[in-house]
Amino acid sequence: MYDEYNLTMLTDFYEITMANGYFQSEVRDCEACFDVFFRNVPDNGGFAIMAGVEQLIEYMSALKFTDEDIEYLRSKDQFSEDFLQYLKDFEFKCDVWAVPEGTPIFPHEPIITVKGPLIQAQFVETMTLLTINHQSLIATKANRIVRAAQGRPIMEFGTRRAHGASSAIFGARASYIGGCAGTACTIADRDYSVAALGTMAHSWIQTFDTEYDAFKAYATIYPDNAVLLIDTYNVLKSGLPNAIKVFKELKPAKMGVRIDSGDIAYLTKKTRKILDEAGLQDCSIVISNSLDEYLIRDVILEGAQIDSFGVGERLITSKSEPVFGGVYKLSAIERNGELVPKMKISENVEKITNPGFKNVFRLYGKDNGKALGDVITLQGEQIPEVDGYEIFDPNAVWKRKRLHDFYAKELRVKIFDKGKCVYKSPSLQEIKQYCKDQVDTLWEETLRFENPQTYYVDLSKKLWDIKHELINKYSDDAE
Amino acid sequence: MYDEYNLTMLTDFYEITMANGYFQSEVRDCEACFDVFFRNVPDNGGFAIMAGVEQLIEYMSALKFTDEDIEYLRSKDQFSEDFLQYLKDFEFKCDVWAVPEGTPIFPHEPIITVKGPLIQAQFVETMTLLTINHQSLIATKANRIVRAAQGRPIMEFGTRRAHGASSAIFGARASYIGGCAGTACTIADRDYSVAALGTMAHSWIQTFDTEYDAFKAYATIYPDNAVLLIDTYNVLKSGLPNAIKVFKELKPAKMGVRIDSGDIAYLTKKTRKILDEAGLQDCSIVISNSLDEYLIRDVILEGAQIDSFGVGERLITSKSEPVFGGVYKLSAIERNGELVPKMKISENVEKITNPGFKNVFRLYGKDNGKALGDVITLQGEQIPEVDGYEIFDPNAVWKRKRLHDFYAKELRVKIFDKGKCVYKSPSLQEIKQYCKDQVDTLWEETLRFENPQTYYVDLSKKLWDIKHELINKYSDDAE
Repeated sequence: MYDEYNLTMLTDFYEITMANGYFQSEVRDCEACFDVFFRNVPDNGGFAIMAGVEQLIEYMSALKFTDEDIEYLRSKDQFSEDFLQYLKDFEFKCDVWAVPEGTPIFPHEPIITVKGPLIQAQFVETMTLLTINHQSLIATKANRIVRAAQGRPIMEFGTRRAHGASSAIFGARASYIGGCAGTACTIADRDYSVAALGTMAHSWIQTFDTEYDAFKAYATIYPDNAVLLIDTYNVLKSGLPNAIKVFKELKPAKMGVRIDSGDIAYLTKKTRKILDEAGLQDCSIVISNSLDEYLIRDVILEGAQIDSFGVGERLITSKSEPVFGGVYKLSAIERNGELVPKMKISENVEKITNPGFKNVFRLYGKDNGKALGDVITLQGEQIPEVDGYEIFDPNAVWKRKRLHDFYAKELRVKIFDKGKCVYKSPSLQEIKQYCKDQVDTLWEETLRFENPQTYYVDLSKKLWDIKHELINKYSDDAE
Repeated sequence: MYDEYNLTMLTDFYEITMANGYFQSEVRDCEACFDVFFRNVPDNGGFAIMAGVEQLIEYMSALKFTDEDIEYLRSKDQFSEDFLQYLKDFEFKCDVWAVPEGTPIFPHEPIITVKGPLIQAQFVETMTLLTINHQSLIATKANRIVRAAQGRPIMEFGTRRAHGASSAIFGARASYIGGCAGTACTIADRDYSVAALGTMAHSWIQTFDTEYDAFKAYATIYPDNAVLLIDTYNVLKSGLPNAIKVFKELKPAKMGVRIDSGDIAYLTKKTRKILDEAGLQDCSIVISNSLDEYLIRDVILEGAQIDSFGVGERLITSKSEPVFGGVYKLSAIERNGELVPKMKISENVEKITNPGFKNVFRLYGKDNGKALGDVITLQGEQIPEVDGYEIFDPNAVWKRKRLHDFYAKELRVKIFDKGKCVYKSPSLQEIKQYCKDQVDTLWEETLRFENPQTYYVDLSKKLWDIKHELINKYSDDAE
């Protein structure tokens, strides 16, 4: 498998500098708690989709410094020998909680919490962020594109424009979680069961003496699934007539035409009409030309006649916003045997972190199963499922809302207990289905692309009190 | 090494569908020729930087279908047994030419040519594009950012926002080719000798009881390179005074302060002044907050006092334009023992490909060593280094220019001869230096960010004639 490669050394160098520093200072044996959260949904969307947990588990399970790694680090001439020995004996001992893959996630809530020995909990920062940021980015984008297509299948076609092999492979995986029907990326099928599909490039057509010869050869060899690329020369004058001729002669079990250029709405309407007139109502039309959620939404509105889409570079790179800004922040550190809440202060109120060792609940309406809001609590708190439970906006406390007839569900699962993996990832199929079901719990207002309603992510009273105590303390110190 | 993993199956599924199709049709044993080229420079720049050739060589050298791959493909129930046997015995036999890494490249010229058995030359499309597109994208972006910084070192800091492990590792490699001084990505140092550096995160500061304690602990442990992050609480009121105190007490051999938030121009000017007044002229100022080439250019214009930059997400994802649009197009196919030029026609004249088995030359002025233009020729043609050699714009033939006192140099090297690697990649250091030297051969007009002068990429008369013959033929056929 692609992910068997040991990525322990895929880390920002400062994680090692800090680890060596911690090791040599009085905080060496402290326990610490870090949260992963993000501040903004890509593309100004209403929510993101969690993805990458399975790969994070693989990374954490495989953490190990080899002799070569130690040798390399020794050559830097800045790490102590006893620290290098510590790395040699490194065994991951943290507790880790994560939101399961496929879950809609929202800004500011801790989607992952790592709690354990300071050095370790700090060290896993880089790969935790890289893994979750990448796959959540692509799953979120895929989900937008899938929703725009209103039930028409989306194929992920972006391998050639991916940012390296992992970007292609795990991008295909994340796209599938977000709702794509499959991928062009063969290795993602072999290793991750993301169904791979594909038929022909323009070069297939050009390799034969005529377009008709090329189509005929293909439909002869693949009578079960003859999807012909009809835009090499001219869709309406050449590609479509040749395809129809071949379909009538060879009668393949499954027929399709793919158009990869030109005006989608115009060409597909014309193509559908001509196919129907030729009695080929079963022939599907596939489109694959620089698509994203906006273009797909618009051509469907224009009445384009499309059965499925292949989406490439704008999905695999999340072109319109290629960064998922997950961050990894210290939330608590041990002092005298107790975890003391910590917080990063900022001039910008939105950037102030939530202190302490925390938990998150999602509240659902009992009548309709819809998600009403999330509440971040201290670890150990429960949400009282009482009538009239009040939630409030942590940045505008006068915005209050009383909930009735709801139930609360912990949003996260424990994936590591003292370094031992205690969670089995569902199959990719199950994750995909779970994603679909969970997105269905959101209101339409949160789903829309333009200016979606902000979903409630509130703090429990206890957490809010601790946060404000710390803010006041910092303000006093600053005077 | 990270790249030892066999990526043979990292391919668009249609490459396999086509391979099986070719295998079963009359073109099975034909020779074919494919070119890689791109149509637009990212960010509307004047040129791109070639990168990724070393990884492409590793990929092509390692091509091999394992028994598991064959088993997987057999399970798809659409490939013939004799084709699967062919894959089992697959040995790469192509000739490949590539522009060396670090070279400035321009739209429409064949930066890679693959010539060999049709099935093989087709099959390597996906990984060839993925590898070259990714690394050229990042090298190009890095070179823009490096040029904006006018000699101040740029560190690549984007690992946590990369699109998976390969994006981080080869992104760091490509950034270095483009001119970065180093990376935060440790594994890129271990495996590719991209110098890795890093000091501390905000969590280091928060872990200690006070900011002063944190700085003191760090400078005690790292007296040779104490770069302190001074914006955890308040740069001017807290971070800087604490850093100065520690620098004066401990006198580290190398001192620096890093600022990761706030207004760069204002804070760095203030910080420089205060450091100088404290007698710490040697203390450097490092900036690392959502930077790109435009912001760097602007804060330098504003007089910001910065010694080096850490650049993260906007470099590692090439955020402003995360797609390098390299394509892979058939240029010739064997008929009756001869290579017949092929061309993809299009309504859009810019999208018509250049037919035939080709070569590229770069023409330099003898007096100043400046690049005057590139000329695409047929393979085997030479550029006559005669006074008055005329080049002309292939899309506007009335734009002609006579060259005097120049010499011509083949732009590409042969990297595979009948499947055997015949090229040894230079060291990454050498590639980086070569890139710098080659960028220096470009005129200022090509280097600027806004509306750069279009560099000449012309066709030889012979190639132009063949292209027009084919265009006329297609037009006749279409009537």
